[in-house]
Amino acid sequence: MKAFVYQGPGKSAVEERPTPDIIAPTDAIVRVTRTTICGTDLHILKGDVPSCQPGRILGHEGVGQIEAVGSAVQSFKVGTRVLISCITSCGRCHYCRRGMFSHCTTGGWILGNTIDGCQAEFVRIPYADTSLYPIPAGLDEEALVMLSDILPTGFECGVLNGKVEPGNTVAIVGSGPIGLAALLTAQFYSPARIIMIDLDDNRLEVARQFGATDTINSSDGHAMEAVMALTDGRGVDTAIEAVGIPATFELCEGLIAPGGTIANIGVHGTKVELHLERLWDRNITITTRLVDTVSTPMLLNLLTSQKVNAKRLITHRFKFGQILEAYETFAHAAKSGALKVIIEA
Amino acid sequence: MKAFVYQGPGKSAVEERPTPDIIAPTDAIVRVTRTTICGTDLHILKGDVPSCQPGRILGHEGVGQIEAVGSAVQSFKVGTRVLISCITSCGRCHYCRRGMFSHCTTGGWILGNTIDGCQAEFVRIPYADTSLYPIPAGLDEEALVMLSDILPTGFECGVLNGKVEPGNTVAIVGSGPIGLAALLTAQFYSPARIIMIDLDDNRLEVARQFGATDTINSSDGHAMEAVMALTDGRGVDTAIEAVGIPATFELCEGLIAPGGTIANIGVHGTKVELHLERLWDRNITITTRLVDTVSTPMLLNLLTSQKVNAKRLITHRFKFGQILEAYETFAHAAKSGALKVIIEA
Amino acid sequence: MKAFVYQGPGKSAVEERPTPDIIAPTDAIVRVTRTTICGTDLHILKGDVPSCQPGRILGHEGVGQIEAVGSAVQSFKVGTRVLISCITSCGRCHYCRRGMFSHCTTGGWILGNTIDGCQAEFVRIPYADTSLYPIPAGLDEEALVMLSDILPTGFECGVLNGKVEPGNTVAIVGSGPIGLAALLTAQFYSPARIIMIDLDDNRLEVARQFGATDTINSSDGHAMEAVMALTDGRGVDTAIEAVGIPATFELCEGLIAPGGTIANIGVHGTKVELHLERLWDRNITITTRLVDTVSTPMLLNLLTSQKVNAKRLITHRFKFGQILEAYETFAHAAKSGALKVIIEA
Amino acid sequence: MKAFVYQGPGKSAVEERPTPDIIAPTDAIVRVTRTTICGTDLHILKGDVPSCQPGRILGHEGVGQIEAVGSAVQSFKVGTRVLISCITSCGRCHYCRRGMFSHCTTGGWILGNTIDGCQAEFVRIPYADTSLYPIPAGLDEEALVMLSDILPTGFECGVLNGKVEPGNTVAIVGSGPIGLAALLTAQFYSPARIIMIDLDDNRLEVARQFGATDTINSSDGHAMEAVMALTDGRGVDTAIEAVGIPATFELCEGLIAPGGTIANIGVHGTKVELHLERLWDRNITITTRLVDTVSTPMLLNLLTSQKVNAKRLITHRFKFGQILEAYETFAHAAKSGALKVIIEA
Repeated sequence: MKAFVYQGPGKSAVEERPTPDIIAPTDAIVRVTRTTICGTDLHILKGDVPSCQPGRILGHEGVGQIEAVGSAVQSFKVGTRVLISCITSCGRCHYCRRGMFSHCTTGGWILGNTIDGCQAEFVRIPYADTSLYPIPAGLDEEALVMLSDILPTGFECGVLNGKVEPGNTVAIVGSGPIGLAALLTAQFYSPARIIMIDLDDNRLEVARQFGATDTINSSDGHAMEAVMALTDGRGVDTAIEAVGIPATFELCEGLIAPGGTIANIGVHGTKVELHLERLWDRNITITTRLVDTVSTPMLLNLLTSQKVNAKRLITHRFKFGQILEAYETFAHAAKSGALKVIIEA
Repeated sequence: MKAFVYQGPGKSAVEERPTPDIIAPTDAIVRVTRTTICGTDLHILKGDVPSCQPGRILGHEGVGQIEAVGSAVQSFKVGTRVLISCITSCGRCHYCRRGMFSHCTTGGWILGNTIDGCQAEFVRIPYADTSLYPIPAGLDEEALVMLSDILPTGFECGVLNGKVEPGNTVAIVGSGPIGLAALLTAQFYSPARIIMIDLDDNRLEVARQFGATDTINSSDGHAMEAVMALTDGRGVDTAIEAVGIPATFELCEGLIAPGGTIANIGVHGTKVELHLERLWDRNITITTRLVDTVSTPMLLNLLTSQKVNAKRLITHRFKFGQILEAYETFAHAAKSGALKVIIEA
Repeated sequence: MKAFVYQGPGKSAVEERPTPDIIAPTDAIVRVTRTTICGTDLHILKGDVPSCQPGRILGHEGVGQIEAVGSAVQSFKVGTRVLISCITSCGRCHYCRRGMFSHCTTGGWILGNTIDGCQAEFVRIPYADTSLYPIPAGLDEEALVMLSDILPTGFECGVLNGKVEPGNTVAIVGSGPIGLAALLTAQFYSPARIIMIDLDDNRLEVARQFGATDTINSSDGHAMEAVMALTDGRGVDTAIEAVGIPATFELCEGLIAPGGTIANIGVHGTKVELHLERLWDRNITITTRLVDTVSTPMLLNLLTSQKVNAKRLITHRFKFGQILEAYETFAHAAKSGALKVIIEA
Repeated sequence: MKAFVYQGPGKSAVEERPTPDIIAPTDAIVRVTRTTICGTDLHILKGDVPSCQPGRILGHEGVGQIEAVGSAVQSFKVGTRVLISCITSCGRCHYCRRGMFSHCTTGGWILGNTIDGCQAEFVRIPYADTSLYPIPAGLDEEALVMLSDILPTGFECGVLNGKVEPGNTVAIVGSGPIGLAALLTAQFYSPARIIMIDLDDNRLEVARQFGATDTINSSDGHAMEAVMALTDGRGVDTAIEAVGIPATFELCEGLIAPGGTIANIGVHGTKVELHLERLWDRNITITTRLVDTVSTPMLLNLLTSQKVNAKRLITHRFKFGQILEAYETFAHAAKSGALKVIIEA
């Protein structure tokens, strides 16, 4: 089969690979019909993710059809259409039993990282019963690809951890795909105000269309003052960090009201400064999280009942044969305006 | 009346002052029968607390008897014995209505800070109805002084924020009075294990007597390894920071298990390094808090039913005339072995 | 002044009464500009509410302007426009300190019940600082009247207690004003499905316009089967009882899925049968609640940001001189189609 | 092998049965070393549990040693000592993924009910990875048998659902084994007061030894008045129903304070009267629950750290050959004083 393979820092190619086989009785093989590219895939290509070694097929998002199942798989049969979760969950370890699938002792984020992933014709999914979801009839496959990773990540790491509540004021720092996913899902809880902060006016315009009540271009270095002006000097109840660099995290420290929560989504490569000399008595909470995908059944319900328009995150579509072009488009988002790109089999 | 007064960095004295008067209809005047000294008072004396200006009577803890009440005070009459809360709460502003008395817009920590405090024969208490508590009959006054600040602070900032739960593993970094208050109140939730960490073997010995299941002297720089050895490499569910310097906060970052909570109690004078490059995907929570004293009624219940022995925090007793000696003893705790000192009228 | 007065079972009239005076330093006198009628007022008129004695001015909802304040009132001045809460809260008792204003030891629901109410030109409001809310500039007064009682009641007793969550399935039994208030506010949490159940097709049509995804006319006695058909035999996550009779509560018992919550809003005059022989092992929760109005600030935020259209509950408008006609219209809602009626000064 | 078999209403016997075999790849066969008898077993023998048909081997509690495992079992090997959970959990269905193992779509309470149970030399355990727990080294086997059902039931259905908190007042109605299990585990949260109510003075004496602060013999019909006298007329924060008849549930309705919770543990055979005409405005919560055994890992931690003395529930010990005598003793608890009886292989 054809597969997109990481070949070491700065190198990648479409290779011919053998179709994967069932290894454990809990495995399933899925024929991938649609996949996408994540910001993390770009990090891997640069060599920034040491757990992912050269030779690895990338990709941890997608939908497809069951091709084969191991003897212990109960919930799926050959032919069932499924959503692939970016997180593999054994359902048995003490983390899985507590709903913290991200830290599953034999799973977690392994697809396209420590085992071969979805940017291929077929993929082997361990613990299929607890890592795949059957697709309700009539659901749009493209929208579903957004439920593999980006929507649950924005929701769980940003909105749930950030304790977004009706009537509250929320700031989201970073209006890229993950910030916009947080923006879409924050509206499940009807905050009174969502302030979107970014350096790029085009992305802020997208944010307004997606439901932001206010936008701030932070390139002048005065975002904090602008937020204080909007909130009578109080700051925000929830600040969602959706970039992953010290400057944006420290901006969140400045925006947060007493009693508020900073919910980090960003993948950080370096430490940040935490100003406890100002924050120790402010009754704030800071959270970090790798998505657990516990919210996937809920998101499927909301997609089915058309309470969330996940598809509006998709800006470009490619065939699998054009995957290099898809990477090119996604990697140069400022120029292409790309948010999420769909790669169809 | 006699009062202990901050006279500027490094200077203080007992002065003769006029007895305070009712200013607002919600005020009460309390004759102080017992007070104590807080670590914060030492910070003020060094000049580290800019909000507290020279000429201020210090002290924000104590018990006493109502001497006079304003026209709008409903809950107290002359003669009632009362517990003074370190936090003044108006009961009306939006922070008070949410239970966040620490950020009361016209109260909060003001006693012995921005208004005159309890280390005097009399003290004026604003918003008496919501800042004083009647003392149940038969309760020991010395034990009650521990409910003005130190027990609610250990409980709310450390134990409640730290989400201590039955069966969990807790580490407390710092075995001074506030760490020991966290240790006493953590046991309300029956954690399986409480690991106390300090540089002083005497304080660790006290911690063992107070209920710590394990103690670690961190002076060798290997506390993190020791905690990992005790927890099969997992780390702790709750890490309580009870010192207030970068080294101890960063130790907590190293101790915390995936899914765990770092609850800061320490008063920090400088920023710390937050290692998000290691923690962004660990599903952890960090909290800060100035005590709200919302738990005071509950602590009074537990004191009444003898479920907590607050008095064991008291090591020394003085008359008000000996207050300078009391400060001396408290300031040199390593030598004197002082935890809390009682100053009796 | 003119006032609408309960004169004993079946009797009421507009009477001339003296303008109220400040009694306690925490009182305010409000000139009522708009008020409304509650289902409870009809119960009083029938003689069903023994706490309300003949001679009482009715009414516990309204907006107005401050006419006078007592010496201890801090938050309001003469001339301020205010929202009157149906619940009077002292802000000091242990119920108020826990946010359970409904059980305030000297307040709670007293307006138009044990003290004179709002269906008059002026009303005395005890504990003004904690029982009135300043009106943000630019807000529509009619919409605000819905925040005195009906919206917080639907939200707190139905939606909050019922733990409505994104993606869940909710059934609301009773599509009168209070059921519709629950319907409007349930949407703050984006449930996937809201099933409205009533005997009256007109009210069900209103429910559909207000956002119900499904409606069931229960007059054929098969509502339970209809809900099971809609939910693949599982039942609903939340069942909100908004009628107050045994049949509708027992219908909720039949609708609820394992793990679900029955939230009672209805005012019950008689006991109901609880089928524990079927429910003991179903992991369900049942809640009751008199509204606390803790959500009023949040609802004001959502009204200001136009996230809730409270005004659509209003069907009729009268001048105070027409109050008897207003009662007539409201009492015969099946014929008049009345939901809430506004009575303007 | 020898097994205790239900033969129809009023009939039971020790029979010779074939040793069970692995049927599914997720099964394990356990050699039972210790088991016990539950009140539910007595109900089955009377014919009160229609799901349990004649010919069934009874028993859903016990500890033992792994004798064989299916091909998909990952966590256990032949020879491992294990605790058997009374609840079988597949770990895959939507109830299991939410932590509601009691309603597992292919598991739940099936052992000794719809499949053969533990009162035999061997037992087949479906979904072994998620229905058995490895026994930490050094733990007493007898104490562990209390963790199969009775301690998690008292804790989850009574204490957790009842929201027992530090400083609160708790009433437990019924001082039999399950009420005493609630009493032992309620103390994990340090309530100020635990009032035990029963008809039998001997059981109340046991309750006092187990930590009850007050006891009331309700045989005079004045238990409600006695509780009100103990609580200044307020009632209790938590009322735990541990009997299962209308009279005791209705007593709980009378005992509960505004804002309180009634947590039902009792297995009810008939409906009860819910006095909503008194309770609709009292802000109370009522819960029901079949134990999920989600708390088993926590209870194992507390047993290991000696924070709970589970063994004190055991009053009698028998060999498997004496199982008929064990049933006799357990069935006549009033005479024998039996709480839990251990049956050793």
